[in-house]
Amino acid sequence: MSHPTGADDRFPAHPFDPFSDDDKLHEECGVFGVIGVTDAANFVALGLHALQHRGQEAGGIVAHHPDHGFNSARRFGYVRDNFTSHKVMETLPGPLAIGHVRYSTTGSKGNTAIRDVQPFFGEFAMGGAAIAHNGNIVNAEELRRELIGRGSIFQSSSDSECIIHLMARSYQKNIPERMKDALRRVEGAFSIVAMTRTKLIGVRDALGVRPLVLGRIGDGAWVLSSETCALDIIGAEFVREVEPGEMVVINGDGIESYMPFEPRKPRSCIFEHVYFSRPDSILGGQSVYETRRQIGVELAREAPVDADLVCPVPDSGTPAAIGFSQESGIPYAMGIIRNQYMGRTFIEPTEQIRNMGVRLKLNVNRALIRGKRVILVDDSVVRGTTSRKIKEMILDAGAAEVHFRIASPPTAWPCFYGVDTPEREKLLASTMSEEEMRAHLQVDSLRFISLDGLYRAVGEPKGRDARSPQYCDACFSGDYPVRPTDMEAKGFEFRQQEPAE
Amino acid sequence: MSHPTGADDRFPAHPFDPFSDDDKLHEECGVFGVIGVTDAANFVALGLHALQHRGQEAGGIVAHHPDHGFNSARRFGYVRDNFTSHKVMETLPGPLAIGHVRYSTTGSKGNTAIRDVQPFFGEFAMGGAAIAHNGNIVNAEELRRELIGRGSIFQSSSDSECIIHLMARSYQKNIPERMKDALRRVEGAFSIVAMTRTKLIGVRDALGVRPLVLGRIGDGAWVLSSETCALDIIGAEFVREVEPGEMVVINGDGIESYMPFEPRKPRSCIFEHVYFSRPDSILGGQSVYETRRQIGVELAREAPVDADLVCPVPDSGTPAAIGFSQESGIPYAMGIIRNQYMGRTFIEPTEQIRNMGVRLKLNVNRALIRGKRVILVDDSVVRGTTSRKIKEMILDAGAAEVHFRIASPPTAWPCFYGVDTPEREKLLASTMSEEEMRAHLQVDSLRFISLDGLYRAVGEPKGRDARSPQYCDACFSGDYPVRPTDMEAKGFEFRQQEPAE
Amino acid sequence: MSHPTGADDRFPAHPFDPFSDDDKLHEECGVFGVIGVTDAANFVALGLHALQHRGQEAGGIVAHHPDHGFNSARRFGYVRDNFTSHKVMETLPGPLAIGHVRYSTTGSKGNTAIRDVQPFFGEFAMGGAAIAHNGNIVNAEELRRELIGRGSIFQSSSDSECIIHLMARSYQKNIPERMKDALRRVEGAFSIVAMTRTKLIGVRDALGVRPLVLGRIGDGAWVLSSETCALDIIGAEFVREVEPGEMVVINGDGIESYMPFEPRKPRSCIFEHVYFSRPDSILGGQSVYETRRQIGVELAREAPVDADLVCPVPDSGTPAAIGFSQESGIPYAMGIIRNQYMGRTFIEPTEQIRNMGVRLKLNVNRALIRGKRVILVDDSVVRGTTSRKIKEMILDAGAAEVHFRIASPPTAWPCFYGVDTPEREKLLASTMSEEEMRAHLQVDSLRFISLDGLYRAVGEPKGRDARSPQYCDACFSGDYPVRPTDMEAKGFEFRQQEPAE
Amino acid sequence: MSHPTGADDRFPAHPFDPFSDDDKLHEECGVFGVIGVTDAANFVALGLHALQHRGQEAGGIVAHHPDHGFNSARRFGYVRDNFTSHKVMETLPGPLAIGHVRYSTTGSKGNTAIRDVQPFFGEFAMGGAAIAHNGNIVNAEELRRELIGRGSIFQSSSDSECIIHLMARSYQKNIPERMKDALRRVEGAFSIVAMTRTKLIGVRDALGVRPLVLGRIGDGAWVLSSETCALDIIGAEFVREVEPGEMVVINGDGIESYMPFEPRKPRSCIFEHVYFSRPDSILGGQSVYETRRQIGVELAREAPVDADLVCPVPDSGTPAAIGFSQESGIPYAMGIIRNQYMGRTFIEPTEQIRNMGVRLKLNVNRALIRGKRVILVDDSVVRGTTSRKIKEMILDAGAAEVHFRIASPPTAWPCFYGVDTPEREKLLASTMSEEEMRAHLQVDSLRFISLDGLYRAVGEPKGRDARSPQYCDACFSGDYPVRPTDMEAKGFEFRQQEPAE
Repeated sequence: MSHPTGADDRFPAHPFDPFSDDDKLHEECGVFGVIGVTDAANFVALGLHALQHRGQEAGGIVAHHPDHGFNSARRFGYVRDNFTSHKVMETLPGPLAIGHVRYSTTGSKGNTAIRDVQPFFGEFAMGGAAIAHNGNIVNAEELRRELIGRGSIFQSSSDSECIIHLMARSYQKNIPERMKDALRRVEGAFSIVAMTRTKLIGVRDALGVRPLVLGRIGDGAWVLSSETCALDIIGAEFVREVEPGEMVVINGDGIESYMPFEPRKPRSCIFEHVYFSRPDSILGGQSVYETRRQIGVELAREAPVDADLVCPVPDSGTPAAIGFSQESGIPYAMGIIRNQYMGRTFIEPTEQIRNMGVRLKLNVNRALIRGKRVILVDDSVVRGTTSRKIKEMILDAGAAEVHFRIASPPTAWPCFYGVDTPEREKLLASTMSEEEMRAHLQVDSLRFISLDGLYRAVGEPKGRDARSPQYCDACFSGDYPVRPTDMEAKGFEFRQQEPAE
Repeated sequence: MSHPTGADDRFPAHPFDPFSDDDKLHEECGVFGVIGVTDAANFVALGLHALQHRGQEAGGIVAHHPDHGFNSARRFGYVRDNFTSHKVMETLPGPLAIGHVRYSTTGSKGNTAIRDVQPFFGEFAMGGAAIAHNGNIVNAEELRRELIGRGSIFQSSSDSECIIHLMARSYQKNIPERMKDALRRVEGAFSIVAMTRTKLIGVRDALGVRPLVLGRIGDGAWVLSSETCALDIIGAEFVREVEPGEMVVINGDGIESYMPFEPRKPRSCIFEHVYFSRPDSILGGQSVYETRRQIGVELAREAPVDADLVCPVPDSGTPAAIGFSQESGIPYAMGIIRNQYMGRTFIEPTEQIRNMGVRLKLNVNRALIRGKRVILVDDSVVRGTTSRKIKEMILDAGAAEVHFRIASPPTAWPCFYGVDTPEREKLLASTMSEEEMRAHLQVDSLRFISLDGLYRAVGEPKGRDARSPQYCDACFSGDYPVRPTDMEAKGFEFRQQEPAE
Repeated sequence: MSHPTGADDRFPAHPFDPFSDDDKLHEECGVFGVIGVTDAANFVALGLHALQHRGQEAGGIVAHHPDHGFNSARRFGYVRDNFTSHKVMETLPGPLAIGHVRYSTTGSKGNTAIRDVQPFFGEFAMGGAAIAHNGNIVNAEELRRELIGRGSIFQSSSDSECIIHLMARSYQKNIPERMKDALRRVEGAFSIVAMTRTKLIGVRDALGVRPLVLGRIGDGAWVLSSETCALDIIGAEFVREVEPGEMVVINGDGIESYMPFEPRKPRSCIFEHVYFSRPDSILGGQSVYETRRQIGVELAREAPVDADLVCPVPDSGTPAAIGFSQESGIPYAMGIIRNQYMGRTFIEPTEQIRNMGVRLKLNVNRALIRGKRVILVDDSVVRGTTSRKIKEMILDAGAAEVHFRIASPPTAWPCFYGVDTPEREKLLASTMSEEEMRAHLQVDSLRFISLDGLYRAVGEPKGRDARSPQYCDACFSGDYPVRPTDMEAKGFEFRQQEPAE
Repeated sequence: MSHPTGADDRFPAHPFDPFSDDDKLHEECGVFGVIGVTDAANFVALGLHALQHRGQEAGGIVAHHPDHGFNSARRFGYVRDNFTSHKVMETLPGPLAIGHVRYSTTGSKGNTAIRDVQPFFGEFAMGGAAIAHNGNIVNAEELRRELIGRGSIFQSSSDSECIIHLMARSYQKNIPERMKDALRRVEGAFSIVAMTRTKLIGVRDALGVRPLVLGRIGDGAWVLSSETCALDIIGAEFVREVEPGEMVVINGDGIESYMPFEPRKPRSCIFEHVYFSRPDSILGGQSVYETRRQIGVELAREAPVDADLVCPVPDSGTPAAIGFSQESGIPYAMGIIRNQYMGRTFIEPTEQIRNMGVRLKLNVNRALIRGKRVILVDDSVVRGTTSRKIKEMILDAGAAEVHFRIASPPTAWPCFYGVDTPEREKLLASTMSEEEMRAHLQVDSLRFISLDGLYRAVGEPKGRDARSPQYCDACFSGDYPVRPTDMEAKGFEFRQQEPAE
């Protein structure tokens, strides 16, 4: 594209970064906002630290103080490295702040400029507003073309900037009304936190694909967060989820609730339960950890196998492996040890190190594995590259048999709702059956949990309602609840959602 | 103002920085552009290095390559530190590039954010454009309010961004036409270099207050630059000055010239000759060095004094001191030695060092000065703080008498055309007569060159034409050729220009 | 002390660094060396990365190349951040290299200068030698005084520099003989890797307190390493442990073995099995992971309790918790979740963050814990501060009961053999009985494994042989196998070792 | 050599750095010390800043405080960048400090490690001492071999470390006596500042080749400095020069003077007057500026030429050009303008920039030069590379004639006394006559001042006393007053000094 990119602010993508592993799906973002405390930005920094797993590439905070106006800081790298010093935090005074951690999905991928880092800020006729979102606006390119045609100048290549421009051009008098105007034009899956000089605003799209929760600190302070684990870190009390399609506007006097979208049956993202959310979060009333353990239980029922050990692929496979062990009675063991000193910064490796691949972050517990029949429990298989390397490590260490059990159904379709997925043809499950994948990976057995099994684990005893699915499971089913307008314009053919009853 | 400022990108102002000395006037910017060479950005970097005296705070380059589109790099600090590495320069490929060095005037002063660093870039319906300017748009705030009211979102607090937004909203089809549309709305003193994907554009305001010259490299490559010294560094040939009120549009086929403004009698800035331009530049057909030497000659005629030595205040007083010595026959000598290792980076001094003040960068040649009657030649007196310290140093070293000769008339009025001046009341000459200043500085004599003497030195044998002055000399005369609209709105009372014949 | 410390090279100690947690014992060092490969330094970097848990403060590598001589690089921070770029690794050419990771014990603690970072290098009359060690020389101060008195000038405040000076002053002709000369003077617990221009040397003290293993890559390359996990990362084959009291000298022709010390019955460190070594290492023929799981089994037998869940304190309590669950039949669960984004660099926290304490790195899985009777398995209790915070988190989350089970006996005595322990009075177990500690921590029960139970877990079915203990367990028993000379000089009273049979 | 060099601490040499221009001779060092003030290190920082022209590569300060002992900071780069922040200066408390700026001569040239940066520190039996020196120890390699053979371990590759080791091995009781012991063993040209916990020590070699002056602040504080300009910056009063062969020991009670060397007739370096010292310093009772102006006067007498302009090659040729103009009556003019933004940090230039060579820092004042007969006055010709480029620039600008006048005699011999000179064959004057050099440089005339003329300018009306020269002028005459022992061992044949009367 023809947008200029800051030569200096490129971020090095890296194959040895355990958190940018290209054989995982990546959540693009976490959002967090606080109103009513002294030095809100400090709370936001803590909240973002707890949400770091939702985006490690960059983070930003905007704060507002009655005397010092809006101030922002946006940086590449971890929250812990950027938003902890007095020097930075003192520049973000005030009782109201929002923040964002991002993993790039839209924007110049792998090559994000600092100006693509949220929150975005715009000055309008009646005052400024900042906005951050988690998700994806599926008609962002169409909107962008229209806005540029009318003379708007974009600062970034991010889809969320559209909302700011739509707000700037609204004829409404106040910012919440302008946001409603803007929201009526955007399509997609998104959770928004926004702020004016006096208000904290939260929005969840009509289907509630992406999560957003409301919390309270003491009497008069309020919090919006992608997950409950970020309420815990600041000692906030969980109040409720923001409802699908709801817009909450919070100021000193309390909360107002609006429903700016046409009502639809909610379909929140089921992959949040499988992988994205932290195990200590509570999502849709379910403990994420317990759901994952239960997936292991279901897997053990659906796909039992005679073996000596159940080992998680660290760390995301651990809860399901515990469940599998408990249901099957096969002992749980740490067969693979993760090097906890791997990190973002293992940059520019020598060729020799690059070729060592997965051993840098994982090592086999050789004494344990030798001669054993091993069940490996992993959360998902995307491209299959990591699974293959792990299998080789296990066999090199002398395992007698290797059985993979996967805590999600085959990932066969890309996500267009704010999750970074490879193109369809790169998804192993898009072109191979389970047995073909097993042969490809050269393991003794490979089984994925069924879609119904997964639904049972998240608390739907009857499994998936095929006529009106309870969750967005497009990555497994190809059933896309929101038409991916921009992608269609580029020729993507998607499997149309069955009409809801 | 309520614009958010990046917490991280503040630039430390510093009293010991010889180049940010608050007792000098500061040119805000230098501009440079090249079309038709391989790796134009390298040429721009060299040009900006030669123009560094026009702005040390920050610099930026935008380049365009047919395959790689627009790319930019903008940094705080010197060109030599930012735009010399392969790593940076390789990100700026292509045959067309423009650049900018800045000393902040508008924008958050002393506290510039990187987003205020030019060139600015905007994507329009028919393609992108980048723009950089030297000068000041005197109705920028008015335009900004209007544009925000219509839904434009500003990225920066710089006045030049208005031009980009006006262009974005123009109904013209091509960018040169859009720029003409935009230029008709802006008032002020400015020299612009801009670029589209295929064209290099130069504009000088109707009065030609700020300089802009055209150069050529070999057959097919063209250069625009604030000064000729930046043509020399890349071996370019000087072709001509861009005319006051002219807009040149250069592409592979040559140069087109337009006159988008109403014609007016030119009045270029006379202070460029006194201080801003480099002595090795040629300005309005005059050698800057020779003009300054001639000022010294005029001064010696206007204000002779019996003394032993003529010493320049380094380094800007040197040419006038040479001229004074030659005219008066009093020997020229280096009475004050400048420490060449002072620099931008002498940050965060201890209190003790702070109190040592001017000695850090200047030292008296004690053995030379002792017992002598010394004439000190300086380029200007702004607040008078430096003059006072220098006088003390010279007397401490045992001088018998100290006589100041100043190579410009008293600076009594602020500049609104792109030069950083203190508020009027801080200008020593705004409240004191020459004799009062002498008494204030406690020197044996103090004389400024007359306005007519200055005009003679720049090549007007009859001196200043009071009914229709040949130059903009508002800082000396209070005669402002362009109405400072925004400042008037804030209550500034200026002395109206006499109607030109 | 009066040694000058580089003002610039101080390392910030930090309470939120999970790896510098002052409620753990810290291994001071890991050592690694390779001979016979191309670019040995790359192998050393990988080995040190695998040994990073043994020291996170700093690391260093010295390499030798026949044409380029000795070269070194020593840095604060992680291996992954310092020894992975081409720029650094290319400066360390050659087929022979040694390296070191350190956690400061001696030297200016918390305030290490880069010159205290090993390996140390000295040029002798017949050529240079570099040396690195893990452990502690208990008569280092006495030796230092003597050497200074004779005119040696110390570069560092590290005890290992004594060995280099003793070697420099030896009258022996070759370096291995000089090292033997030097070793006869030093007392303590240490594993050394050293190198000359052509030889890789390994030494283990007479008791074999600190570990050192020998590995092989292909036919002609050899490796020395603190642990076997660092052989795995480079694909080296485990050959054997270096024997207590053995000195191996390796060159192109193979390995020579010497026994420079008076023979003694070995007593390797039992705490390596409990905490220091990585679970995927094999130590004294035992799988570290399996030993720790077995400690959990023993604990469940020695100290059973009726409860709902067995939860590890992450991550070091995990293997013992698995064993406890398996032996007791009480389900294993992840009750405490560790934030994997904590790290070294969470520097300079705001006061607010500092007060949040342990929550930054640990969060309770609230949905799981509520109403449950929870057994928490941790590896050790040092000061008790962390245990107390964890107990509070668990109770805040609504646990019905909290039972601590500790995978080591009470740590009642400081270690003088290369492990960073607090002063005796800061060790909770030095002043309290088990029941007093339980009351202090305000938990429902607290039980440590017995010393005999620990010996059984490490493979001594009859437990500890009180007349001639099989391991060094001074931190539990106060039975110090090597007289801590320097500490005695400072007044430390230690419990003398019972005479071995 | 086989000494390990820190991979990280290499300093990039750079052809575009005006201060590392390889066509100049370079002074290796400046030294400075203070006793008796609060926070002596701040004074040392200021003094080193004023001495920065004597060494830009690196600087170091050691301070001593009764409570905090010795502390040091040593850094690459400018004083202004390293020794001005509170953070650094607060780590250097105490009333006694010494410092050093260096340009590498010995040590790994162009590749200095931080451990080669002075002052050096050593801990002896009776306390520590720090030492810094300017000059060169001509038998350093011989001493080093001897000391290593006896078991000393060197930290650096610098010759001054020998003195510390000789002191450490002395049997004398106090440090001044140990230093005398050490000084008796070293040969060469050196000015030393050293410190113990309570004493500031200054030493000048027997011939007084390198300068060292004594100053006083108020009543009880004393200063040692390479030049008087560094007394001025801190407001210290000049007391006297340290005498050739003198050792001064200063403490709270005053100054003791010793003469540890065999008496010899002094021969201080004449090149200090020509180039090394700052023009505002007073050296041997002479104003350096006035001496240089007088050299110009002598040159105009010895080598007159008919021309239009006298132009200095900036900046070092300026005083002589002024003198030449005054004596000849030919107008002085700034024909060459120096870009004051060149600096250390113009690193890693693109190939294109590299080829532009000297234009980056110098530009011709074209309007002035065109058609003129120009006399260029430069301080010296070393390799002749710069002279040639300057000549080309001047001719390109249209000069009618170019005449070079050089303010020193032909530099035909290398310096072994602390000045960085190329090997003999690289010195233009070692192989060519004056006329051959003129032809080589292709200029209309080229004349050097005669050795006698130079002596007259420094105040010897009868010129050089050939039987017993008043100065060290070995670089011009090949008459080396101290036998360069190490260089002889390497085969250098030098012209023996004529026996003094």
